[in-house]
Amino acid sequence: MRAIIVNKPGGVEQLKISEQPTPEIEPGQVLIKVKAAAINRTDIISRKGQSGYRSNPILGIEVSGIIEKSGPETALKTGERVMGLVNGGAYAEYAVMPANRVMKIPDHLSFEEAAAIPEVFLTAYQTLFWLGNLKKNESVLIHAGGSGVGTAAIQLAKQLRDAHVITTAGSTEKLDVCLSLGADVGINYKERAFEEEIANITNSRGVDVILDFIGASYYKKNLSSIALDGRWILIGLLGGAKLEQVNLMELMAKRIHLKGTLLTPRTDEYKAELTSDFTKNALPLFNQNKLKPIVDRVFPLEDVQQAHLLMESNKNIGKIILKVDK
Amino acid sequence: MRAIIVNKPGGVEQLKISEQPTPEIEPGQVLIKVKAAAINRTDIISRKGQSGYRSNPILGIEVSGIIEKSGPETALKTGERVMGLVNGGAYAEYAVMPANRVMKIPDHLSFEEAAAIPEVFLTAYQTLFWLGNLKKNESVLIHAGGSGVGTAAIQLAKQLRDAHVITTAGSTEKLDVCLSLGADVGINYKERAFEEEIANITNSRGVDVILDFIGASYYKKNLSSIALDGRWILIGLLGGAKLEQVNLMELMAKRIHLKGTLLTPRTDEYKAELTSDFTKNALPLFNQNKLKPIVDRVFPLEDVQQAHLLMESNKNIGKIILKVDK
Repeated sequence: MRAIIVNKPGGVEQLKISEQPTPEIEPGQVLIKVKAAAINRTDIISRKGQSGYRSNPILGIEVSGIIEKSGPETALKTGERVMGLVNGGAYAEYAVMPANRVMKIPDHLSFEEAAAIPEVFLTAYQTLFWLGNLKKNESVLIHAGGSGVGTAAIQLAKQLRDAHVITTAGSTEKLDVCLSLGADVGINYKERAFEEEIANITNSRGVDVILDFIGASYYKKNLSSIALDGRWILIGLLGGAKLEQVNLMELMAKRIHLKGTLLTPRTDEYKAELTSDFTKNALPLFNQNKLKPIVDRVFPLEDVQQAHLLMESNKNIGKIILKVDK
Repeated sequence: MRAIIVNKPGGVEQLKISEQPTPEIEPGQVLIKVKAAAINRTDIISRKGQSGYRSNPILGIEVSGIIEKSGPETALKTGERVMGLVNGGAYAEYAVMPANRVMKIPDHLSFEEAAAIPEVFLTAYQTLFWLGNLKKNESVLIHAGGSGVGTAAIQLAKQLRDAHVITTAGSTEKLDVCLSLGADVGINYKERAFEEEIANITNSRGVDVILDFIGASYYKKNLSSIALDGRWILIGLLGGAKLEQVNLMELMAKRIHLKGTLLTPRTDEYKAELTSDFTKNALPLFNQNKLKPIVDRVFPLEDVQQAHLLMESNKNIGKIILKVDK
């Protein structure tokens, strides 16, 4: 089968189409004929060779497609339209997925739309609810509102908790999308100091939850924007990792919960449990059109280099998809 | 009534016995004839005027005694032996306590022993279980094992979760007490590098929960001692608050939950809920002698200055008590 592998760690020029053996399934797994895969930042890290995670030489961690083969123990039927997280191997014509991680695609969604769901909606679900304990009517600050996880988090926070959603992004175009998805406030961080806006909006109380993809460059601003007993979930370091001059008293006095997380390196059990919880509480809302996948652009598999370049430019709003034709 | 107040923010010489009006109760409160109060570090902070918390001019946040007066709505009887947290006003002959925070004193305990229970056992319970989510058979690192909260936490972790308890302290005498209370390992931090010991003991896996009273001076050592998905609860800054450098990637890669907390400034509702949970799950173990209050020394009320000096010397093992005679 055709698949994308990395020649050697480096730039997009290292992404190559190659002929790879079609994977074999083990008990508890299904073989998926891939229709679409999506680009994630972790793929770029894997491509550059910075991450220890990549047991599979084929890139990619999420797919949509149809079940090609499935053991009798899985209760899943050949031909079903499914999506979900895989342990590598998504940028390919066939991929293996643990059966307990399979989600059925809502009827009205295309494969390209479905491939835009698993990673970002599961990540947003995990960070907002499992880690952030976002409660009904609480407030949440979602940075990088136009990103894949951002667009998913805005919708989930609004639809499942009726939260007061404040989001930041770097362009009017991105902010318009955030607002259309349900964000109450959109702040252009290039034009305004978000921490001052939040102090105004919340009467200096701050927000209950922060989804932080930025890290170091926003640390002091996030600290001043978070409320007493706030939960601050660190899921990205686009603004760097290294801080100077941290005062632990500030974390203690506000009783902050600062939680670092990554989804990809988690165990199969964790991903299965998260998928199951999401399937129960969030997936039905896609059928009701209350949640929707946000697709920025669809590339054919062979244009994977352009797809990676687009993600690295941070210009996308929502997900970048690879369409796999056979 | 006689009570201890602070003349002006400063050293122990500012602690004065004075004549104060006996407090009046409001609905939902009880008046306690105080038999004993205990010294807490927050009292020292209040004495020095560094804390915003002290709505009551009389120092002290926990008492044991007997109910002197109680509204009909409280279902508590005059004459009952009780203990619990108060909103200031503990170093006195009478104190007011919200009825939903009253705990009955186990029959075999003296008032001096009972006064050694509320603050440290509730704090240890809150940090280990509510914030640390310590699960059965997990491992926990308890710094300052000889302190009031340390001695309580060792017992609670062992009795309620059968945890693997590793503790640090600065003397053989303190470590002997820690071991007698159920700690599996005692490390003298003056003689050995605790982070190396923990790497050895846990095969470099690290511990699931850290109770950190120390802060800045242990930050890097704690970071290296905590396991993947570890919970790190910051409840004191005896080793300073200011860190020169922090790498957020380290928090993210280990998926650490770093939670700052303080019990005293929390709301009445929080304290009531915590008291109720503790009363249900931990208090019965005092009657079975599986948990015991650790009293270092009892001073008469008028020797409050010596009591504060002893706490500031960090030489106590367990609680320092003020006995209130009338």
